[in-house]
Amino acid sequence: MPRIDGRTAAQLRPVEIIPHINKFAEGSCLIRCGNTHVLCTASVEDRTPPHVPEGEGWVTAEYSMLPRANRERSKRDVAKLKLSPRSAEIQRLVGRSLRAVVDMAALGERSITIDCDVLQGDGGTRTASITGGFVALALACRKLMLEGKLDKMPLTGYVAAVSAGIVREEPLLDLCYEEDSSAQVDLNCVMDDQGRLIEIQGTGEGRPFTIEEQRKLVELCAGGIAQLQKLQKDIVGEL
Amino acid sequence: MPRIDGRTAAQLRPVEIIPHINKFAEGSCLIRCGNTHVLCTASVEDRTPPHVPEGEGWVTAEYSMLPRANRERSKRDVAKLKLSPRSAEIQRLVGRSLRAVVDMAALGERSITIDCDVLQGDGGTRTASITGGFVALALACRKLMLEGKLDKMPLTGYVAAVSAGIVREEPLLDLCYEEDSSAQVDLNCVMDDQGRLIEIQGTGEGRPFTIEEQRKLVELCAGGIAQLQKLQKDIVGEL
Amino acid sequence: MPRIDGRTAAQLRPVEIIPHINKFAEGSCLIRCGNTHVLCTASVEDRTPPHVPEGEGWVTAEYSMLPRANRERSKRDVAKLKLSPRSAEIQRLVGRSLRAVVDMAALGERSITIDCDVLQGDGGTRTASITGGFVALALACRKLMLEGKLDKMPLTGYVAAVSAGIVREEPLLDLCYEEDSSAQVDLNCVMDDQGRLIEIQGTGEGRPFTIEEQRKLVELCAGGIAQLQKLQKDIVGEL
Amino acid sequence: MPRIDGRTAAQLRPVEIIPHINKFAEGSCLIRCGNTHVLCTASVEDRTPPHVPEGEGWVTAEYSMLPRANRERSKRDVAKLKLSPRSAEIQRLVGRSLRAVVDMAALGERSITIDCDVLQGDGGTRTASITGGFVALALACRKLMLEGKLDKMPLTGYVAAVSAGIVREEPLLDLCYEEDSSAQVDLNCVMDDQGRLIEIQGTGEGRPFTIEEQRKLVELCAGGIAQLQKLQKDIVGEL
Amino acid sequence: MPRIDGRTAAQLRPVEIIPHINKFAEGSCLIRCGNTHVLCTASVEDRTPPHVPEGEGWVTAEYSMLPRANRERSKRDVAKLKLSPRSAEIQRLVGRSLRAVVDMAALGERSITIDCDVLQGDGGTRTASITGGFVALALACRKLMLEGKLDKMPLTGYVAAVSAGIVREEPLLDLCYEEDSSAQVDLNCVMDDQGRLIEIQGTGEGRPFTIEEQRKLVELCAGGIAQLQKLQKDIVGEL
Amino acid sequence: MPRIDGRTAAQLRPVEIIPHINKFAEGSCLIRCGNTHVLCTASVEDRTPPHVPEGEGWVTAEYSMLPRANRERSKRDVAKLKLSPRSAEIQRLVGRSLRAVVDMAALGERSITIDCDVLQGDGGTRTASITGGFVALALACRKLMLEGKLDKMPLTGYVAAVSAGIVREEPLLDLCYEEDSSAQVDLNCVMDDQGRLIEIQGTGEGRPFTIEEQRKLVELCAGGIAQLQKLQKDIVGEL
Repeated sequence: MPRIDGRTAAQLRPVEIIPHINKFAEGSCLIRCGNTHVLCTASVEDRTPPHVPEGEGWVTAEYSMLPRANRERSKRDVAKLKLSPRSAEIQRLVGRSLRAVVDMAALGERSITIDCDVLQGDGGTRTASITGGFVALALACRKLMLEGKLDKMPLTGYVAAVSAGIVREEPLLDLCYEEDSSAQVDLNCVMDDQGRLIEIQGTGEGRPFTIEEQRKLVELCAGGIAQLQKLQKDIVGEL
Repeated sequence: MPRIDGRTAAQLRPVEIIPHINKFAEGSCLIRCGNTHVLCTASVEDRTPPHVPEGEGWVTAEYSMLPRANRERSKRDVAKLKLSPRSAEIQRLVGRSLRAVVDMAALGERSITIDCDVLQGDGGTRTASITGGFVALALACRKLMLEGKLDKMPLTGYVAAVSAGIVREEPLLDLCYEEDSSAQVDLNCVMDDQGRLIEIQGTGEGRPFTIEEQRKLVELCAGGIAQLQKLQKDIVGEL
Repeated sequence: MPRIDGRTAAQLRPVEIIPHINKFAEGSCLIRCGNTHVLCTASVEDRTPPHVPEGEGWVTAEYSMLPRANRERSKRDVAKLKLSPRSAEIQRLVGRSLRAVVDMAALGERSITIDCDVLQGDGGTRTASITGGFVALALACRKLMLEGKLDKMPLTGYVAAVSAGIVREEPLLDLCYEEDSSAQVDLNCVMDDQGRLIEIQGTGEGRPFTIEEQRKLVELCAGGIAQLQKLQKDIVGEL
Repeated sequence: MPRIDGRTAAQLRPVEIIPHINKFAEGSCLIRCGNTHVLCTASVEDRTPPHVPEGEGWVTAEYSMLPRANRERSKRDVAKLKLSPRSAEIQRLVGRSLRAVVDMAALGERSITIDCDVLQGDGGTRTASITGGFVALALACRKLMLEGKLDKMPLTGYVAAVSAGIVREEPLLDLCYEEDSSAQVDLNCVMDDQGRLIEIQGTGEGRPFTIEEQRKLVELCAGGIAQLQKLQKDIVGEL
Repeated sequence: MPRIDGRTAAQLRPVEIIPHINKFAEGSCLIRCGNTHVLCTASVEDRTPPHVPEGEGWVTAEYSMLPRANRERSKRDVAKLKLSPRSAEIQRLVGRSLRAVVDMAALGERSITIDCDVLQGDGGTRTASITGGFVALALACRKLMLEGKLDKMPLTGYVAAVSAGIVREEPLLDLCYEEDSSAQVDLNCVMDDQGRLIEIQGTGEGRPFTIEEQRKLVELCAGGIAQLQKLQKDIVGEL
Repeated sequence: MPRIDGRTAAQLRPVEIIPHINKFAEGSCLIRCGNTHVLCTASVEDRTPPHVPEGEGWVTAEYSMLPRANRERSKRDVAKLKLSPRSAEIQRLVGRSLRAVVDMAALGERSITIDCDVLQGDGGTRTASITGGFVALALACRKLMLEGKLDKMPLTGYVAAVSAGIVREEPLLDLCYEEDSSAQVDLNCVMDDQGRLIEIQGTGEGRPFTIEEQRKLVELCAGGIAQLQKLQKDIVGEL
């Protein structure tokens, strides 16, 4: 059965990463995965939070959706006086994923905040935030090197992420919003450029899933992530 | 003395308004005034807040800056658990300005929320929000007409806004961030397309200013606003 | 057409400023403009916020209405867990207005907080807060001089404020609540004692207004402010 | 040993209750107990909170201190995004105390909110709030009768309150701030006009206290309360 | 008339205090007074809040109910973004009561936080929190002595608390929830082991009460508290 | 290499589930997995949130840690005015996991809230919350059947959860806190009683992990979950 937008089961949506989208941020990009658009900026500060060991750096992430990123307008978090639990969960995931490839000692006593603001959301905003967030992070590190503040890139690998899911009993890569809404199973993978997992999160939304199905979804993700990392390398270059 | 970016005293920064930037919003645009970039969306809902008389509509605005819109990253409002007072003040101004040209009875029992999110800020974000917000509003009204939900445009005029200020004793139109930072006087005008004032806000930041100086600044604004409204008409068409 | 309370178009409401109303504050007054009553206190502290340059002082303001200051009881800000946007806007205005005449270096490394609490509100609470807030500020400075903590008054002028508006097509000074509710245009001026503007804020609430109308309203305000400053001088003395 | 302000052990501070201090509230007074000044307003609304049985009314209280009511300026509750625990405790006490003499069925389906705002605090603000709050409540009920909305006063008695304490081993009535600061024991009584207790709260701040001492303090309070109720009757009249 | 659970008027509910219930806290117990179960932990930290004089320690308390501690589930405080006023009041009472027997100089520059979390509530949760909180506090002090961090117990007495009330005109000790719900008068006493009062709080919920009635209730409490302190001594030992 | 507590790699900590621990909740248990103790209650209410289709029910969960559940005391969420992001993430996971086996139409128009309060935490609090939360949920459903409010159990399977991780290159089941702190990889599985996955969440905390390693960890979890579900069946009985 053909997918709603004509893709094959293992095909990514069209992806575009526009680097240097923000004039002020140390690193930035706009990532477009189909109709999902996320603005990612990396901000460098010369101090670290209290829990960070002396001599080391820190990387953290914040995630938010503009109120009209979606089909229906949603209230701003500040109007509800709290961060949406969904945003809280996602920004913790983005932060953990990026930290997995940062050599904190090589980064030195500075912190980098990755802001992922969803301008338009059509499914897969969290994985787009990770893929785009990595580019913003790498560009900021590159800038620190150019300015002589770092001797070498403090990154040990590339990080990208994508989702896969089971829709009408069929495993599909990179679900768009409409597929996601009717998915029976939804699974996200974050991987490095050696095909190793950094994060895996799977949910049986419509029904439980077998270990075999889970394996198949991871394979689909691995294929998509390899393509995303090629795009990242084109922009960021060798580490 | 030439301005920092080479403009003449009465010259606007390059302005660009890209309509239909958001796939989901009923009306939207991205407005770029120099390096100030504001994403404006209009969201229509079929209910009104309690204070609105039966049979009438309502228009309101929300304003926010992305954390890295500026030279330095600022904390998100939600992290501080409150809307920044500056944002609160600006969104009240944007809302009042747009309501000034809305025929609430003609709009009918629906409300339109204008979200102005500053992607990049280089001075004049509040006036850009008004100018872009009007375009989003008008496009949303146009859409309601095309869908047969409105018989006529419920707008009684065009609204645009710009700032002027006194920098090193010289009155200048449309201050960029660096001019704004050293301005002695800063004044914003919101006007309709008959050259009438809807809002005026002036502040002696470095020194008080005479009534004569105030007059001169309003004149500068009037000139800039006329140009902005030409751009608006190109996009929105006749009302 | 006579005004609702029998005043002429350019006539202030009866004004009374009672100094030293609070036993503990370094400076204080109760200002009554007709039925608008605002309690203003100035509190001196020997430290300044982080953004203030070394060797300089700071002046800030807070504004609030008691819940039953108005015709209807309103909820306290704390019950809603946020400062009302209107209060946020007004206290920024009061603070800016007063800072315009403070020589921060002469004030030295101390901060003065002006609290303006509206006990009863009948229109014009923001302008009464500025006029009364200046008296509280000046009395606090006077006290610092008497205690030998300041060599000279750190104030470079008197600041007072008043509103004017267009009601039934007629420009009127110092609107009371009922006039304000039906005003077509509402404009506030803050001025120093040389008739120069410190702040101007005008809003076309019912209709846009011409530059000529705006000019007329500023003139009305200038006349009222001169009278208010006479009252201030009687209490505060020469600077 | 004479008291700091020359009073005898069983003597109240000078008390003054100025009724009708607020033009808009249904009932109001300013109560001054020495240098403690509390503005009390009663606001009537024609609806009741959900927990109130049909056909009955409700009375509640809110308490707050102006930021410069005290020797040192304190932050506003809203700046801390929470009601101070002390204020929360006091307003619960004031509400319970007043409800003790209200016939909720006779009041009918309306609620009365008593706002107690401390303009200046010199000890005993919670007891002054109860004594003044009762006057505001009774005046509001009187007004409802005059307007024909109530057939009879819905109050079953007078309520007043005062504190007593042990200072330097001596039991004293109505502690002022300086006595309160060095009190070993502090006890508040709320009583009706038959000398019965409605609330009693005692704290051994410096040391525990015997049942005998507690008894002596209650007696002192009873004497003071009788005097306060005479003042209340002069203003409010027979119930 | 027999009590609902068969007790005599002056009889406590069955009480049980299980010490060392928490593996990590420096001191802890689970106190069960009938169906009221409170988990009390004492946490020691080597710093004190800013208001504490140098060389001294501090003791504070926090109180909370689990959402399903009661007959009906209640919302968590955090869901309402504020501490319930009732909890705020109770934790202030618990803190004051325990501090009354702490020699802050002997405790040294450390603070102890007593957390009282109500697992199940059937009346008397605040008094159980005080009685159990004292045990947790004493066990933590004992541990500090065993570790050689304190030379002597910094406690000057035992503290326990209980309620009494008038139900159907009869004075009863230690009200359970059902008695409490229909009580005309409710009174809590906190006492030391010499029968002296530390806190007394009485409320005429259904009707005012005479000084004689108040006295009778205090006597009932004194009897109950003596029994509770015997239990405390069995666990904590001599001070 | 033996584990810190002597277990084999595939061995669970001692587990105990005490049902009916709370007198008021419709279903409840205390689950102890080693030193991790979680109190789970299920509260039934006869209404559903707005997003639930007519005729259907809803199940949701809340998760919180008591302040001294851990080695160090942590601040309460309410003191920080926000739900901890970690708690937000966990309670979403618990809710999703339990909903996976609920037949919402069979449950009917009622909602069940599962409160998971961690009394003591030693690793694995989220998985213990799911395992214990299911028991509380099932007991509440059983009670609804006994009361004749439900015809059949609205549960389609048993749900339990456990973690596994890689510690010093060795895959281990059910990590305790000390193992968890030094784990290179941490993975949680939620499964039904047919060995199918409901949720999977894996994180490379110290290093990325291969798909093969991920598979091994899932297998370990499957073994542990089967044992936990035997315990659940002993308490809950057949569905």
